[in-house]
Amino acid sequence: MFEATKVGRKLSKQSFKEQEELLRAELLQIQHALKKSDIPVVVIVSGVEGAGKGEIVNRLNKWLDTRGMQTFAFWDETDEERERPRYWRFWRSLPSRGKISVLFGGWYLTPIERRVLGKCTDAELDAELSRIVDFERMLTLDGALIIKFWFHLSENEQRQRLRLLSRDDRSKWKMHPQRKKFSKQYAFFEKNAERIIRQTDRGIAPWYLIEATNRRYRDITVGKTLRDAIQDRVDSPHVADTQITSHSPTLPDGKNAQVTILDHVDLSQKLSRNQYKSKLKGLQKKANKLIWDSYNKKKSIVLVFEGWDASGKGGAIRRFTNAIDSRLYRASSVAAPTKEEQARHYLWRFWKEIPRCGYITIYDRSWYGRVLVERVEGFASDEEWHRAYSEINAFEEQLTESGSTVLKFWLQISQEEQLRRFKEREKVPYKRHKITEEDWRNREKWDEYKLAVNEMVIRTSTEYAPWTLIAGEDKLFARIQVLESICSAVESALRK
Amino acid sequence: MFEATKVGRKLSKQSFKEQEELLRAELLQIQHALKKSDIPVVVIVSGVEGAGKGEIVNRLNKWLDTRGMQTFAFWDETDEERERPRYWRFWRSLPSRGKISVLFGGWYLTPIERRVLGKCTDAELDAELSRIVDFERMLTLDGALIIKFWFHLSENEQRQRLRLLSRDDRSKWKMHPQRKKFSKQYAFFEKNAERIIRQTDRGIAPWYLIEATNRRYRDITVGKTLRDAIQDRVDSPHVADTQITSHSPTLPDGKNAQVTILDHVDLSQKLSRNQYKSKLKGLQKKANKLIWDSYNKKKSIVLVFEGWDASGKGGAIRRFTNAIDSRLYRASSVAAPTKEEQARHYLWRFWKEIPRCGYITIYDRSWYGRVLVERVEGFASDEEWHRAYSEINAFEEQLTESGSTVLKFWLQISQEEQLRRFKEREKVPYKRHKITEEDWRNREKWDEYKLAVNEMVIRTSTEYAPWTLIAGEDKLFARIQVLESICSAVESALRK
Repeated sequence: MFEATKVGRKLSKQSFKEQEELLRAELLQIQHALKKSDIPVVVIVSGVEGAGKGEIVNRLNKWLDTRGMQTFAFWDETDEERERPRYWRFWRSLPSRGKISVLFGGWYLTPIERRVLGKCTDAELDAELSRIVDFERMLTLDGALIIKFWFHLSENEQRQRLRLLSRDDRSKWKMHPQRKKFSKQYAFFEKNAERIIRQTDRGIAPWYLIEATNRRYRDITVGKTLRDAIQDRVDSPHVADTQITSHSPTLPDGKNAQVTILDHVDLSQKLSRNQYKSKLKGLQKKANKLIWDSYNKKKSIVLVFEGWDASGKGGAIRRFTNAIDSRLYRASSVAAPTKEEQARHYLWRFWKEIPRCGYITIYDRSWYGRVLVERVEGFASDEEWHRAYSEINAFEEQLTESGSTVLKFWLQISQEEQLRRFKEREKVPYKRHKITEEDWRNREKWDEYKLAVNEMVIRTSTEYAPWTLIAGEDKLFARIQVLESICSAVESALRK
Repeated sequence: MFEATKVGRKLSKQSFKEQEELLRAELLQIQHALKKSDIPVVVIVSGVEGAGKGEIVNRLNKWLDTRGMQTFAFWDETDEERERPRYWRFWRSLPSRGKISVLFGGWYLTPIERRVLGKCTDAELDAELSRIVDFERMLTLDGALIIKFWFHLSENEQRQRLRLLSRDDRSKWKMHPQRKKFSKQYAFFEKNAERIIRQTDRGIAPWYLIEATNRRYRDITVGKTLRDAIQDRVDSPHVADTQITSHSPTLPDGKNAQVTILDHVDLSQKLSRNQYKSKLKGLQKKANKLIWDSYNKKKSIVLVFEGWDASGKGGAIRRFTNAIDSRLYRASSVAAPTKEEQARHYLWRFWKEIPRCGYITIYDRSWYGRVLVERVEGFASDEEWHRAYSEINAFEEQLTESGSTVLKFWLQISQEEQLRRFKEREKVPYKRHKITEEDWRNREKWDEYKLAVNEMVIRTSTEYAPWTLIAGEDKLFARIQVLESICSAVESALRK
């Protein structure tokens, strides 16, 4: 694979100067066009040690308008990062539409290092790589352009380069003790690099292999590649999904499926006020203790509440939050996205709020809006909400892998009960704001929503992040059920 | 001072219920009005141990629309916070216009704790309190409404309350071992609380002392106070500066002061290309080493570049960045503020970018825009840019206190040289984008800018963050001067 990067391509000083002048103008022009587009650009700079990744980043900083780009390195992790799913730091560095993020190594740095240092097996590496492919596809389908550079040197060239570098004060830092080893195992490193590149070189986010022996050739090539890749995307912004159709089971056609999973929820379940009161007290006490235990064991909890309008989400949430220390949780209510949020993938705003180890985030409505309101109201295209299921599953998988407990509640009520509550809300002054024309409109689309909910529950009820359907017809019963579910899930998470 | 909080005010259950219903509707209404205003609201919840601060926050979460509010606690610091100036975490938690942030303790928590635990003297406490007053005035003059609650209990009541709490699993957490001590030294704690409240109780951000013995009385009073304070501000949004006029020296009247500090810069200083080359190499090598030493000693560096259009800021910055590892710095170019940034104090966007220990942030144009372009173009009112000097000085003082080296460069060129460069830029393709009509317009206001720069340098050249005026007429000379200044400043910072 790397033969083409060892042929000794060169550029004379004169030729470099001539090409550079033109290229800089072109790059600025294309960056200007990019700014007006809705394309976020991710540039990944990786390759063998000594290939000059830092020099390239400096060059890009010189050539491009730095107001439209930012550079991120991932060499030292902060505890805020360590205490969240691994990809949190990458989400933090994603550019907004029209901007460029240059990532040192990006999500490739860790897999390569771990494999070369023998910290993971080939199989584990493959699993990680297929996650990367999914991640990149997700970003690309959302409109991102991902440009991945791999800078390569021959073994001989690398040895010479590293020897020179290690003599020079200015570059001694590159001699990271662990990385130094990489050059001693050139063949093994190259073999693994090849594996990684091969498996993640998809049409949707291809790799560019660049010979790094001659600095001038290297940099001009980077500049031109960048220019062409951005130009191409600006000219034809539509990205087709090259993935083979998903293997998710087909669901019975909506119109013919009158009975959904929601119809199996027994809405007749009830609690008397006395039963409620006595249960509530015990459960709140228990929840308080469990949440403190979670905090002490540094386990996070993510709670998602979805349900029909007026199904009692807020009330159920409050019965839980009243029981726990308000320093331990953050409540996130989904409002209209801000400009900053709109300029990024729809999951970005939720990644931002992911709790640190030991803390709780409660989402009152969530990323499931994508497959509910956005689907029904047509805010998301068919392709967009269809692929959201697997994106969401991957997201929640990462949450649980990092040690979070993910619990999702759907609060179910009947159409009649909703009507009754709407009318009641209109009577109570402090509830009146909760009922808007939109709620009435949504009500008219009950059947469409029901189908969407059904599909959502089926497609995203995973072993690691199951849905709990709550019979919400009786508020008291629902609240107790929610509390009980939280307690038992946290209890079993603590036992692990 | 606290007598009024020990009179045993109560509210019956019945009366509470009646008042609550009305109050909730009113609060939601006022929150709705707030949303449409440009007022950020900061609510500080503090007071003696056992007063129920957590309960109050839960109550506010219940009463208010949580989509417009967020709660922040400051009990455990992350390393990202520890590695920045102390107030960074507070800046992170400031609400945008129209929203509410509820802060547990806020900036009062640490001073109280430190004083009561004997970790600082009265004099140090006073210094901290006057910083708080400045900070609150700054926010208030920017349009913020700061509502500070102090919840109080009598000694007897506190003792009983804590005894009860410590028996209850659900509230055992309140028994923070250090805080427990506070109740044992009730008189001392109260004396210090009084000092703090007295010194920070300014008309612009007054304290509300609330008797916390009866929960119902406490919560209804909080709700009503909040309602009235927000209502008042929404009704009359203009905030007058109640501060006595500043004692900063008056400057000679602009029109009569033809000779400014800038005229003393000797623009005839030059370097030959050979001198430049030999100096550059040595300095870059030195800079690289010093920056690595800084990194290893966890010292941050903040570099500010200001100067006339085309004065060579970018070129000077690049000569520095080319010398150092690109993972160690972040370059920040000031572009038009985003919506999110506009919705906050003008310093907020710069606080966001403050480097962690060991890292460098380079600002290509900076917060000084407030007293330069915003002043000259009238984007900031007279009061706004006038008070910016002291706000900026306070900001930079905090940076240096936290161990950062702050260096500010003004690149000076003559009007003739600027014209020459403008014309040259129009000829070179990749420089053409740098020259806009705005640049030509700015040029016409040369004299006004000159006065603004003069005043800026005089008012913000502090011992801890001095301005360095760079003779920029000869680019080569300027670049070397910048590099030399950085090296010598970092060197002396490392010796400390």
